[in-house]
Formats: sequence, C-alpha cells, structure tokens
Amino acid sequence: MGISSTPLTGKEDLSLAYTPGVALVCEAIAADPSMTQHYTWVPNTVAVVTDGTAVLGLGDIGPAAAMPVMEGKAVLFKQFGGVDGVPICLDTTDTDEIIETVARMAPSFGGINLEDISAPRCFEIEDRLKERLDIPVFHDDQHGTAVVALAALQNALKLTGREYATTRSGRDDLTPVKKALAEITADRTGRSGTLAEALDGADVYLGVSGGTIPEEDVARMAPEAIIFAMANPTPEVHPDIAHKYARIVATGRSDFPNQINNVLAFPGIFRGAFDVHATAITEGMKLAAATALAELVGEDLREDYVIPGPFDPRVPGAVSSAVAEAARADGVARR
Amino acid sequence: MGISSTPLTGKEDLSLAYTPGVALVCEAIAADPSMTQHYTWVPNTVAVVTDGTAVLGLGDIGPAAAMPVMEGKAVLFKQFGGVDGVPICLDTTDTDEIIETVARMAPSFGGINLEDISAPRCFEIEDRLKERLDIPVFHDDQHGTAVVALAALQNALKLTGREYATTRSGRDDLTPVKKALAEITADRTGRSGTLAEALDGADVYLGVSGGTIPEEDVARMAPEAIIFAMANPTPEVHPDIAHKYARIVATGRSDFPNQINNVLAFPGIFRGAFDVHATAITEGMKLAAATALAELVGEDLREDYVIPGPFDPRVPGAVSSAVAEAARADGVARR
Repeated sequence: MGISSTPLTGKEDLSLAYTPGVALVCEAIAADPSMTQHYTWVPNTVAVVTDGTAVLGLGDIGPAAAMPVMEGKAVLFKQFGGVDGVPICLDTTDTDEIIETVARMAPSFGGINLEDISAPRCFEIEDRLKERLDIPVFHDDQHGTAVVALAALQNALKLTGREYATTRSGRDDLTPVKKALAEITADRTGRSGTLAEALDGADVYLGVSGGTIPEEDVARMAPEAIIFAMANPTPEVHPDIAHKYARIVATGRSDFPNQINNVLAFPGIFRGAFDVHATAITEGMKLAAATALAELVGEDLREDYVIPGPFDPRVPGAVSSAVAEAARADGVARR
Repeated sequence: MGISSTPLTGKEDLSLAYTPGVALVCEAIAADPSMTQHYTWVPNTVAVVTDGTAVLGLGDIGPAAAMPVMEGKAVLFKQFGGVDGVPICLDTTDTDEIIETVARMAPSFGGINLEDISAPRCFEIEDRLKERLDIPVFHDDQHGTAVVALAALQNALKLTGREYATTRSGRDDLTPVKKALAEITADRTGRSGTLAEALDGADVYLGVSGGTIPEEDVARMAPEAIIFAMANPTPEVHPDIAHKYARIVATGRSDFPNQINNVLAFPGIFRGAFDVHATAITEGMKLAAATALAELVGEDLREDYVIPGPFDPRVPGAVSSAVAEAARADGVARR
C-alpha cells in the first residue's frame, strides 16, 4: 500500500504525481466515472471485511483480534490472485450498521470479501450488500468453501460412479438457512431424522460445523462412502476413522490428502471477476470455478487426489479464466 | 498491501502464516488488545479518508474522482514517512454518517488522516472523532498546512526582525471558525475591516482561500512585508507582483522558492506519533513539528529560503523526532 509504480525523486515528479498533476486525473473521473477503472487502484482492490464474530474456530473474538486473519487473507489474495486486499475490521456487530458502513466505503474498492461474520447475520449482510452495490460481494466462508467442496465432490462422485440425483443425505434439526440449502440440494428423498439416522446408508457426509461424529454412525454409511469432514482444525471424523469405512476422505487440513482449502477458490474468483470488471459474482461464476478446479485433476483422479493442492500453479489461471467467461455468459461483465 | 514479509512457498508456510497458525496470534490479541501493536500492520497504517467534497481546487467532485488524490497521499505517506496509507473514499457527505463510518472502521488503523472534506463539516468531524477514538486523528488540509506555514512564518519574522505580538492582520467578514482562529491568533490589535483595509499597513498576509488580491491593496502593506499566497495552483498574489512590495514571498507551488507544501509535515507527524503509539496528535506535537521544520533552515535563512524543500532528506527524521518527544511531554505516548 502506498508504494508508487513510479519513483518520486524531485519536485517535477511530485507536481506530476500529486498536486497539481493529479487534478487532471480527478477531472477525468469526475467527467466519466468509469475512468476509475483506468486511473486508480480501485478495480484491483478487495476489502476483506469482518466484525470479528466468527473467527476461525475461535468464535466472537472481536475486530482487533480478527485482524491477523484478515491480513493473512490479504496476503493470499495477492500471492494467488494478484489482487490487492485491504483488511477492514469493524467495531460493530449490528447488521444494519455493517451494511451501511460497507456501502459507504464501497467507492474505495473493486469488490467486497466478507469474512468470519457469524451466521445468520452474514447471509442477510451479503444479500443486502449484493442488492445495493454494483461490485462483487462474496462471503468466502460460505461460497469459497462451497466451491472447493463441490469441485472435490464432483470428482468423488465420478470416482465412485455416483450421480447427484441419486446421492443422498438429510437431517431434521436444521436452522432455516440450512433447511433451505438442504431443500435445494440433497434432500430429495423425503428422508429426515437425526444426524445418526441420516448417516445410516448415506453415500456422502459433508461436515462444516464441528463436533465429533461417533464411529458407530460412520460405520453405518453406504459402501464406498464419501466423507468430507471439513471442520478446522479438528475434523468431525478423524481421517484414520473415516478411512475404515469410506472410500474417499477429505478434510480442511494441510497434513492430510484432499484438502478442501478455499484458497483454491477466492483468489481466482476475484481475479476473474476483476479481469472483466464484473458487477457481481453470480452462481454461474461459482459453478464455473468449481468445474474448473475439478477438471484440473483430470486423468490423475484417485482416492487421495480429488482436488488440486493449494500450490498447484495451474489453479489461479484456470479458476480466473472460467470465472471471467461465466461472467460474460451471465451478462455481468463490463468489458 | 497484501505483500507478506515472509514468502509462502509450501503447505507448511501456509499452515503457519494462515490457518491454523494464525489462530495463536488472534488469541494473543484477544487476551491482550495491546498485542495489536506487535502482531499486525495496524499500528503503522493510516486511513486517508475523504468524502470528495473539497478536492484540491476542484471542489465537490465526489468520492470516485477524489481517489487519485488519496492514492497520491498514500504514496507520499510511504515515501516520506514509511507509513502505510489506505485510501478510503466515502459515499456520504453527512457529518454523522462520516463520523460513524470512520469510528466503525477504526480498529483497522493506527490513525485517521482526514482529507479534502469541505468546511465547516470538516471541523466538527475532526473534533468528534478525536473525542471518540484513542488513535491520532488529523485533518491535513487544515493542520498540515498550518504547521508548514507556521514554520515558514517563524523564519520570515526572524529574518525581518519582527515578533508575533506586534505583527498584525485582520478582517471582519469571517465565518465563525475563521473568527475564532483570528481571535486566538493575530487579531490582538482590535483592528477590523475588509481585506483591503486589513492589508493597509499589514506586516503579514496569509492567503489560503483563493481569489486574487488587487495589486493596489498589496502595495499598501507595511515595508518588508511577508506574503504567503498559498492558494493552489493560482496564488492570491502572483509572486512577480508580490515581490514588488514584499520582502518575503511564499506560495504552495513547486516552481517558486519557499513552497508551503504540507508533505513537509504529515508524513513525519504520523511517523512520530506512530513511533510512540500516541493516542492523539496534540497542539504541542504540531508546534514541535513547526519548530523542527523552521530550525532545519538554520544559518542558511534568507528571503528565498524560509522553509526546507520537500525533498530535503533531513525533514522526516527531524519532524518525527520532535513530534515523538512532544507526544511524551504531552502524556499521549503509549511507549
């Protein structure tokens, strides 16, 4: 931040780069706001915004203590996507205040990445900001994880010869948001019950909420089961247990194979969105990211390789190209 | 922004720098918020905040068009003060909304630099943010310019053998804020009237509001007059005219001697404040900055050298040291 691409070494540089030279640039943008895209750092910059209420597995630790995570995220945005990230930790947990604050800051940024804001407020905040702003708004904890998990699941289903339509899971102790998700995803069998009942004969377990699943429940899953135990740092089912009953196991951890790490998604998603000056990140763009990730595995698909590793150098380019193309197809690209 | 001081080259680096390693840093700050000073970029980062209502001489051009000025400021903060600047352009001009927004963002920054917000709102915004926050809040257009002008004036008075107490100026068409300033500064003679009347026999003219002073008025100033015509890019009195009647002439322009350029002040002021983790920027710190600047001229003092040039390499260190010392003296230093 604040590092000029041109060195300032004398009075002439200063007059050109700052006052009075900068006035010409300001006037050009005042006359045509789209010039922001050419003359400022805005179109390449994402605000990484949190209120510190749901930080990692630590919970509500407040905005000051959340800063290291936002800084880490900014580093990953830059390293894997060439995107400039600005960590913004907010001293409010009020839904309306968060929305107002982010909306007022929005002219400073090309996109908004919401991070570690507790549910269910995070859903309303994301929805209302999307409606209000004409730049990408993305809730990484939700969509980043979903994109990577979906990529891995596509490959896991392929490897085990399953189809989405006949694959199942289900629970009846869900919050309204989770219930809505279940209704539009896997809950097509009319099946309901406790987690233990849901696991009985289930093809797939996707865990993102922590806690521990008893081994006896895991043991009742279908043959060649798929277990994604993504709670961090402690998976809901330890991989050693999971492997006794499942054919494919993924976790959020870097020390086991098949890491569901959202660094595979968010840098490339914003890179692709920014490359075409997208006004939003659509479902189509997220699906395209998941498919691109899944396809990178290609012929090498096997039980311990259903998703590329986070340092696979092909990932950012593959994701950003697919996302940019989907943005054009969905009509949200401005160039 | 987003550039790590340590490269991330493999899974181990990623686990350490981001999750799960970052959790340890978050927990340390949650337990002791002062750890923010050691473990984050916050203490070295200033938000450069505007609403785009008073940008350079261009006026109310809005937040998008103001961005290039804020970016330029961030570059100067880094180059001259080693301070990381984050440009924030707000999509509101409402006083309360600006205050609320900045206060909510405050945990992300070590200080707030207000910029190009139109008067008189800028005064209330600064006052109320100062009261509310425990980090430096500084309105550069006002205080930065004042510090540098004061430094130059100290030297100009010295060169012409004048004292503050007997030096005069005055006007009766002032806004309340300007009147209050006049009352606590130069208006000690009971003198009042139009600008033309005020200039009659005046020792010093300080212009910061634009427009043009008729030559006949300039001609009636006292012998060995001091003229600081600081409007940019067009001084209130052109230096060629001013020099016909005045002994010392300063402007805001880089193409004439004696440039009153606030880049001489704000980077060193924030550097000094940040070095001691100051909770505020006091009047004492501003006066110390002015004196340090004036003293750099030293023995070389002459009509066309009452203030150091913006690229004088001694400036940032001299200002920051004086400001840090004054912060300690004023009891606002946290270390």
